[in-house]
Amino acid sequence: MHSIHLKPKEHRRIQKGHLWVFSNELRELPRDIAAGETVRLHTHEGKLVGAGFYNPNSLISFRLLTRGEELPDRDFFLRKLTEALALREKVYQLDDTDAWRLVHGESDGLPGLIVDRFAKGIVLQAFSAGMDLHLPLITEILQELLKPEVVVVRNESVLRELEGLPLYRDVVAGSKTAVVQTIHDAGITFKVDLYEGQKTGFFLDQRENRRILRRFSKGARVLDVFTNDGGFGLNALAGGASSALLVDASEEALKRAERNAGLNGMDNFSLMAGDAFDVLQQMIDAKEQFDIVILDPPSFTKSRKNLPVALKAYKKLNQLGLKLVKNGGFLATASCSHHVSEEDFLQSIHQAALLSGTQLRMIYRNSQPFDHPVLLSMPETGYLKFACFYVTR
Amino acid sequence: MHSIHLKPKEHRRIQKGHLWVFSNELRELPRDIAAGETVRLHTHEGKLVGAGFYNPNSLISFRLLTRGEELPDRDFFLRKLTEALALREKVYQLDDTDAWRLVHGESDGLPGLIVDRFAKGIVLQAFSAGMDLHLPLITEILQELLKPEVVVVRNESVLRELEGLPLYRDVVAGSKTAVVQTIHDAGITFKVDLYEGQKTGFFLDQRENRRILRRFSKGARVLDVFTNDGGFGLNALAGGASSALLVDASEEALKRAERNAGLNGMDNFSLMAGDAFDVLQQMIDAKEQFDIVILDPPSFTKSRKNLPVALKAYKKLNQLGLKLVKNGGFLATASCSHHVSEEDFLQSIHQAALLSGTQLRMIYRNSQPFDHPVLLSMPETGYLKFACFYVTR
Repeated sequence: MHSIHLKPKEHRRIQKGHLWVFSNELRELPRDIAAGETVRLHTHEGKLVGAGFYNPNSLISFRLLTRGEELPDRDFFLRKLTEALALREKVYQLDDTDAWRLVHGESDGLPGLIVDRFAKGIVLQAFSAGMDLHLPLITEILQELLKPEVVVVRNESVLRELEGLPLYRDVVAGSKTAVVQTIHDAGITFKVDLYEGQKTGFFLDQRENRRILRRFSKGARVLDVFTNDGGFGLNALAGGASSALLVDASEEALKRAERNAGLNGMDNFSLMAGDAFDVLQQMIDAKEQFDIVILDPPSFTKSRKNLPVALKAYKKLNQLGLKLVKNGGFLATASCSHHVSEEDFLQSIHQAALLSGTQLRMIYRNSQPFDHPVLLSMPETGYLKFACFYVTR
Repeated sequence: MHSIHLKPKEHRRIQKGHLWVFSNELRELPRDIAAGETVRLHTHEGKLVGAGFYNPNSLISFRLLTRGEELPDRDFFLRKLTEALALREKVYQLDDTDAWRLVHGESDGLPGLIVDRFAKGIVLQAFSAGMDLHLPLITEILQELLKPEVVVVRNESVLRELEGLPLYRDVVAGSKTAVVQTIHDAGITFKVDLYEGQKTGFFLDQRENRRILRRFSKGARVLDVFTNDGGFGLNALAGGASSALLVDASEEALKRAERNAGLNGMDNFSLMAGDAFDVLQQMIDAKEQFDIVILDPPSFTKSRKNLPVALKAYKKLNQLGLKLVKNGGFLATASCSHHVSEEDFLQSIHQAALLSGTQLRMIYRNSQPFDHPVLLSMPETGYLKFACFYVTR
């Protein structure tokens, strides 16, 4: 097995629990080691750190999996997957929710791997060359642990291009007829297409935030912008909302939301296709008012460079949204941009409040749910920001 | 009515929603205006900002209540209290919880006032000379709005000394026989003494965090350190914990916790009196292990000066606590120190993890509940930090 060495002092961050080594932190960047090969990492002084996956084509040249003599073999993967499963089985009851993220990459000690469970289907994503090579082993272990009807690989993230990896999707185990799964979450049913759906088929990370909305939905007129599969809107209706207007730029998304509403026997909703900023402005011009406005946009930036533009967009979006909230109503707003800090996000909402002439009381603030844990040693593992405000004028 | 003026540019923070003016931000600090008097605030250029309470004896010389021409009269207080009540009635159902903070000071537009509701009893606290003078008016309005059996003033905070105000407690309305109230929170009953109890009688701010604990309490052996009234421990038992060991330095607190357990027919608990640090060390020496360890200490510092000492204490406490968590167990840990930022708090836990040789996945992070809202314009309104970790070795 090949060995690579850190530059002086570069082992410190790793010792404190970080799992990535960047190319400029390595003493040498050997070109004769293939992308994805397992190598041993040493400090500059030659002390063994552990083993992980090497990729000379990526800015993240090395991802640590084990510490000390252990190697990332079958036993290692079985142990890590079992540990990750134990956490989910402790915090989720299957009769409450049967859809959760089983592996949140680095946070579960498996850098570059995402595993989502949707009822009897499993979706895998690999973000590193080394993890790509291990997908067959991981699939085999997951089949043992969970006996899924189907395992789908959705290796379509543009982040893979940074690793020099191809984009593709594939059914790697089980039956293709099982790619459409019906999931249950806190009494609401959703149909999820693991092969055709967006990203891994459904956004799991807003689960608890959607539920929180039920707390103040009774009798409310609700506007759910960027509704996607209808998650927030349907939870508001389940909480007793009198109506929900579901907005999305994608006609496909609205069809999914409509189908999901139908599955739950809900009919007090309406659909509107269009650009969120345009739709919000039209409703302001029409002097519409809602008890609850939900803003859950896709990421406004994939890079740190673009941060000022993204923050301007959050400010504008929330300013428009706030204008549509009744006196005594609520704004629920989110950001899933990795590069936007919670502080920056809240600051942009504060500015939006000043511009819209509203007073905000923040009554709830959250990040990711239990199944998307965060490592204190790796801020990169956190990305979701969510907050609810009581709005007065 | 007297007028006071800001120094140049000092109106900017106030315009963005802050409600305090410090003594060094005022052009003049008139000594002939009595502490607590209502005055008008102007910019340096003489433009009216609004009205509020003045106190020449406090570092916070002025607290803003209204903006523009409005005065803090009966109508103002009725409107603000009604608005605050509307929020609580929207987010809390009385059959779920009948104890919540009705007014969280600045966050509810009533600087220096805290109002807690415990079933049919109300507890008031005033932190400014001006609010002190308005307590009779506030009591009268609350009697109209809520028809309480008793209203208790608990003006015992040392923060009052910074305003030059006396410390006292008093039953100001209703019957003294009603000061012991029975409250219900998510199926758990607590007896609360509004006159003799700690602070305002019961800590409301951990309500949602206590409930979260139930999610992973099934079958767990639980250690609840700084248990006070037993809040966390009893919620764990309600979530199916097999046992709870309740620790507190105060024998009085343990008696209250025991009484509360009895009220709920719970007997699978034990009590231990002692200093938390000593007790934790003794249990480490005895090689005890728990599925869940809860650390909810009182504030470790009342001043910013003392911050390094406080952070050391949080590190030590969490280091000891983590040593007692089983592999695959949970740590729930809190800080209510105003001067400790969330970043500093989480950093001290990260250090504790490194020192205790544990790996932490942060699965939950929260601040204050719905009834303790935070103003984005006044970071001072936020103080509670809470986080749960999945602990492996």
